[in-house]
Amino acid sequence: MARVVVEVMLKPEILDPQGKAVQGALSRLGFAGISGVRQGKRFELEIDGELTPERITQLHDVAATLLANPVIEDFAVHAGEASGRAR
Amino acid sequence: MARVVVEVMLKPEILDPQGKAVQGALSRLGFAGISGVRQGKRFELEIDGELTPERITQLHDVAATLLANPVIEDFAVHAGEASGRAR
Repeated sequence: MARVVVEVMLKPEILDPQGKAVQGALSRLGFAGISGVRQGKRFELEIDGELTPERITQLHDVAATLLANPVIEDFAVHAGEASGRAR
Repeated sequence: MARVVVEVMLKPEILDPQGKAVQGALSRLGFAGISGVRQGKRFELEIDGELTPERITQLHDVAATLLANPVIEDFAVHAGEASGRAR
């Protein structure tokens, strides 16, 4: 069992109204000094068996065709990442 | 100018119907061997000035109060992360 993380963000040249809304809310609520916010998606995939190079190539295809829209989004595939989150 | 990444995922014990839908679609579309999918959010914040320890504490508060709902979500704050995304 392996874990793969796929991160999907809008390309830098694409407007991100969701991120802009978050940025506006942060400054309204008193958190100053934040000059930009972009919001994207994060997928954690549990993979059966070993992570072979062919498997990673297949996961790249999954990310490019189903998880991200390559016309407007960039993505990154990180293999075997642990999830160390607070709280 | 520094970049901070905040990752927000549903806690493991919380059902994730969005991730389940993605998982179902993946197996329907012929990508076998994926036994679990969880979908979360990823924020990239551009911070003015230096990333001092106080600043990182403040960003933790931002993440805990505004970007994540700590009742149902875990989050992680990564300081100074580069965005190396494909395509």
